[in-house]
Formats: sequence, structure tokens, C-alpha cells
Amino acid sequence: MSRFTVTYRIFARSEAEARERALGVALEQTVEVPADVVPEGYIADEIVGRVEEIGAEGEGRYRAAISYSPDSTGTDLPQVLNVLFGNSSIQKGIKVTALDLGPLAGAFPGARFGIRGVRRLAGCGSGPMLAPVLKPMGSGSATLAEVAYRSAAAGAHVIKEDHGLADQPAAPFEARVEAVAAAVRRANDETGGNSLYFAALAGPAEKLMERARFAKAAGATGFLVMPGLYGFDLVRRLAEAPDLGLPIMTHPSFLGPYVLSEDTGFTHGMMFGVLQRLAGSDISVFPNVGGRFGFSAAECREIARACQSTDGIGAPMLPSPGGGMSPERAGEMREMYGDDTVFLLGGALLRHGDGIGDAVADLVGSFG
Amino acid sequence: MSRFTVTYRIFARSEAEARERALGVALEQTVEVPADVVPEGYIADEIVGRVEEIGAEGEGRYRAAISYSPDSTGTDLPQVLNVLFGNSSIQKGIKVTALDLGPLAGAFPGARFGIRGVRRLAGCGSGPMLAPVLKPMGSGSATLAEVAYRSAAAGAHVIKEDHGLADQPAAPFEARVEAVAAAVRRANDETGGNSLYFAALAGPAEKLMERARFAKAAGATGFLVMPGLYGFDLVRRLAEAPDLGLPIMTHPSFLGPYVLSEDTGFTHGMMFGVLQRLAGSDISVFPNVGGRFGFSAAECREIARACQSTDGIGAPMLPSPGGGMSPERAGEMREMYGDDTVFLLGGALLRHGDGIGDAVADLVGSFG
Repeated sequence: MSRFTVTYRIFARSEAEARERALGVALEQTVEVPADVVPEGYIADEIVGRVEEIGAEGEGRYRAAISYSPDSTGTDLPQVLNVLFGNSSIQKGIKVTALDLGPLAGAFPGARFGIRGVRRLAGCGSGPMLAPVLKPMGSGSATLAEVAYRSAAAGAHVIKEDHGLADQPAAPFEARVEAVAAAVRRANDETGGNSLYFAALAGPAEKLMERARFAKAAGATGFLVMPGLYGFDLVRRLAEAPDLGLPIMTHPSFLGPYVLSEDTGFTHGMMFGVLQRLAGSDISVFPNVGGRFGFSAAECREIARACQSTDGIGAPMLPSPGGGMSPERAGEMREMYGDDTVFLLGGALLRHGDGIGDAVADLVGSFG
Repeated sequence: MSRFTVTYRIFARSEAEARERALGVALEQTVEVPADVVPEGYIADEIVGRVEEIGAEGEGRYRAAISYSPDSTGTDLPQVLNVLFGNSSIQKGIKVTALDLGPLAGAFPGARFGIRGVRRLAGCGSGPMLAPVLKPMGSGSATLAEVAYRSAAAGAHVIKEDHGLADQPAAPFEARVEAVAAAVRRANDETGGNSLYFAALAGPAEKLMERARFAKAAGATGFLVMPGLYGFDLVRRLAEAPDLGLPIMTHPSFLGPYVLSEDTGFTHGMMFGVLQRLAGSDISVFPNVGGRFGFSAAECREIARACQSTDGIGAPMLPSPGGGMSPERAGEMREMYGDDTVFLLGGALLRHGDGIGDAVADLVGSFG
């Protein structure tokens, strides 16, 4: 196959209208000129998107597969996203549902660690993984480090920083990362465990790679980043930097509008699975069903499938639902997401105060 | 005022519910823990968002003004956006409608050129400005340069590259930018004019600043960038780089879902006006009413107002509606947007073939 293919859900009143809209998308995403002025030859034959298939999905929805030339994107991730959905993102009634990289597959190897790699690093060969979150914003480095120590000592697989810790007066980036890394190392030394520590990278865009290097040197064993604020290409840069080589967890901050509408943006599986794998993420965070966010069980399952499937981009990655985990719900959530999952443990954990270690240990135990 | 303030439109069934939701946003955007576990003192008093005002807007909509501490963001643009709408972007029924920077104002100077600066560079002291777009994708550098030459010779104020030109085999970035810059320079030398040339910066994130420097050295006199794909912080970096110092035009690629829903994301004025000014853009591109995109006249006017207002962030900037411009509609569009506007001339211009210069000259003349 010489072209890559994007499938869109197009909302239309008839198949003819859906086809017309699809032809519009094929132009919009490439030449961005009316059909009658497309130059003949290479541009008309190769560069313009090609409507490969139109199929009815029912209820005014049509599936449109459009293929594009690798010449329009090269191996450049932002440009792939630009051709995938740049201008069409501004048109109502179009939702991206699938991506087949075709000839671009070799340029996008996906997760460098994936499920197996993260399990190996965390020393967790089977069963679900647990990730307490260090917060709240405004806490001092010593306080956050203490929570990290207790959580790691209790057997948490991943210690994740809140995405909002940034570089604040109460816990400046460097001091915080050094303190938390030391705390997790101390716990690991004492228990012989392998709790990972994902440092939240934030700040001005030009400082992120430098901060990633600092965090690794300080002892962080993973990175948390927000592609919604910095662009998906940051994930790709971190994943392929030869001197970094740590797993990446992606956070959904600022990405909500891409999935909240029925008829615009991306499906949940595309945004929190496929695009994350395309960029090279190892763990994809998203809000669990039943909490403060409105994702349905079906949407969460779709994300988990898109992350864990063996026929996606690169190695399967870990979904990481946030919210709602408790010893009482552990069984149900394990059944819903499967074992290849990193369950976040959020703010409710802080209710345990100094007993936070016991609370984490209880949950680790409940997955036995 | 010691805090900055974000105003949200909250969809709720009663004022009590709106207040409850607003309190939820205030927690979600800062500490991200339940109210009962927020530590007393600095975190509860300073860090947690504070609901300052709730007001009814009618039809189940409420206005909620929430203030935040500068300690939660510093002067870091991505973190300002993270606190503004990070996690809450994933909740339905919340739309950002206004931003008052308060104590952060000094850290975000806005457009470095703005309306007056761009007019000065373009040698256009009054009247609307016109910006033919170089496309389609797949054209060779010489073809694009020829269109640029004819457009500049005909008096176009800004020669803008299509956002999708990227770095493609038919017109690799460096060769294309050199050819187009030379063509615009030649036209300016011949006419004594000052047509500006905005080079589209694209490619891997780590190459963008280097490409900006290359483009400036080659003779580009402005940059076109896509904050939806690279993050708004790229605009800030370009605007403040001391060795660049060229005006910036921002393109809406990939940003559509932030404005297409009634009840999520941002208002049109926030996304294509306020956020652009916050980042430091000088010219904000958006789809004009009546074309292939569904923006209404009211939404377009709201964008223009948000760009041009003298009480926004920094200097007023130029709205740049794309689509629909013709000699017949010139008067109507001038009336709608006012003179401080850069009108894009898109694909329809290519219908004129070798007569493209005459077509541009006609439009320039129609604004006399």
C-alpha cells in the first residue's frame, strides 16, 4: 500500500451528501483549493486525498475512508496530524475514527517500552499496576517526597506526579524532583522493590528536554507530559531521544474538547489510544467512568482496547484510568480494564493521612 | 489585584448547581483533590481557586468568575493554560469566556507588532490589508515563488504560505523559502513596495526555531505557525526571541473542536482572539462566515473584536478571516471587520492563472 488512510465519521443527510463532504475533506486536508483549480498530474493524482470508501453507519452517519500520500507529510508527526485533521477539525459533523499508517508505519514505532517494558522496569510481571499521584499543588517538596516514600514502600508500581505541579514556589521543579527521586530510591533500597517515579515535565517549551535530562540524572524513571499543551511531538521527541530512554505517561489536560462532542474531534479510542501510540507514549491517562468526568463505560473500554490491542501502532501500551479506585471496586475495575492497566490513585488517597502507606498496601494486596 | 481571574460559562439547572460546579472547577484546576482533604493554610487560602462571582445568563447558563493565585502558574504560558482549562476541558458544560490576567499582565506583553507594527512594516498606513496564500501543497518552489512575485508586484500586503506546505519533496522547506523570499524581494525592489512574506514554519518541533532563523536570514519578514499542533508556547518563544523580531500569524489548524460545541471549550473570541494575544500573535487566521466552515457572522465579529480591542492583552492585533473575499464582496467585508484586518485570498485566486496579479491588483484597488 502506497498511501496512508484516515477514516472519518461524516454526518450527512444522504450517502450522496456524505460523499460530497468526503471529497471536500480530501481537498481541505491537502491542497485546500476548489476541485476545479487543482493542477493536473502529480498534484491531482498523488497529493489530493482520495476517497476510498463510503459506507453507511446508520442515523445519518457515514464512514469515509480517505487515503493520503506520504509526500504530503513525510515522517513528520505534526504534519501527519495536520493532514489527518488540521482544517477539517474546524468543520462540524466530522469525527476521526481510525488511522492506518500504511507506508508510514516504519516511521512511527510507537511505545518504546509499552506494557512489557513498563512491567519489566517496575518488576511487575503480572496483575494490574497502581500509581498513587503526588499532590496537591502548593505542597512542599518534603511533603510530596514523604507521600512518595510511603507509597513506594507500600509497593506502588508507579509514583506519578500531578500534572499541575509545574515549577511552583512551594516545590520548585529541580528541588522537588531531587527530593521525590531520593525518597523513591530509599524506599526501593529498603524493600528491594522497583517503584517507578514519573516526574511531571512542565514549564516553558524550550526547557522541557533539559528538565527531562535533569529528572533522569536525579533518578526519575519516567516522564509525565501533557500533549494537549505542548503538542504530541514532544512525546515523540522524548521517546526517541537516545540519552533519555525512559517510559512516558501522557496526561489528557486541555484535550477534552477533542472527544466531548458527538460530531466533532476524535473518538475516545483515537485520542487516548491511537494518537498516544502514534506519538510514542507508554501509558495513557484518562478519566475513569463514574467520577467527576462524564466518560461512559463504553468510551473507557474503547480507550483500553485502543491502548492494549496487539494490532495497533507499535507495542501495546497501558491505559491508565484515573478516579474511582478502592479496595471495594478493585475487582470490578480489574474485570473492566484487564490486568494490563495502570490504575491511578488520586486525591481520595490523601484522606488516609499518615496511613497512606497502609491504604496503598491494601490496594496492592487486593490485586494479590 | 493579587490574583488572575477566569470566567467560565457553566451549564446547570439552578444557581445552586452552578455554584457547586464552579467550586468543583476551582478545585479541579488547582489542587485536584476533594474539598475535605485540602490542607489548611497556604493551600486552602491561596492556591485553591476562589469562586468570586456567580451570575445567571439565562437558559440554564451561569457565569462563574474564578480567581487563581499566580503561585499556581508563575509566568509560564502552558501552566497558565493548564490552570485556565486543563482538566476542566474534559468536563461537559463548561466554556471559557474571559480572562483577566491581573498580576500576570506584565509577564504577557502580547503582540510585539500588532496592528500598528504590521502596518508600518507593510507600508500600509490605512485601509484593509490583503494576503494571497501560496498553494496548493505539491507545487514546486518555482511555481509558488512565481505566484508570490505576481502577488507582491500587484500590491498584496502580505504573502502567506499555506499552513500545509511543510517540508515536502516538491518544495523542500529551505529551497522554497529562499525562492519565495527572493521573489517577494524582487517585486518589492521593482515596485518600491513592502509586501511582507510570512513563511510557514513546520516540521519536527525541535527544528522550528532553527527554521525560523533560516527563514529570516533568507528574507522572510514574518512567520506562520499552528499553535494547535505545536502548542501556544511556540508563539511566545518566537515572539520573544531577541534574534528573530518578526511578526507572527497564527493558523487555526487542529483547533476547531475548542470552539465548535456550544457547551465545551472556549468562545470564538477567547480562542481566536484572547489566547492568540496571550501567546503574542500579531495576526489571527480563522475561517470567514459563509465559506466551507460554519462560523456565524456573530462569531466572526466576536473574533474581530477580541483581536482589535484596545483593552485586551497588549497591543491590538489583526484578525485575518479566510475565504469569501472578492471585488464584489469587498465593501461588505470591510464594513463587517473594519479596516484593521488582513483578508486572506485563498484557492479561488488560482482560477485567474497567469492573471493572478491582475486579480490581486483589482482587490487592492477595490479598497483604494
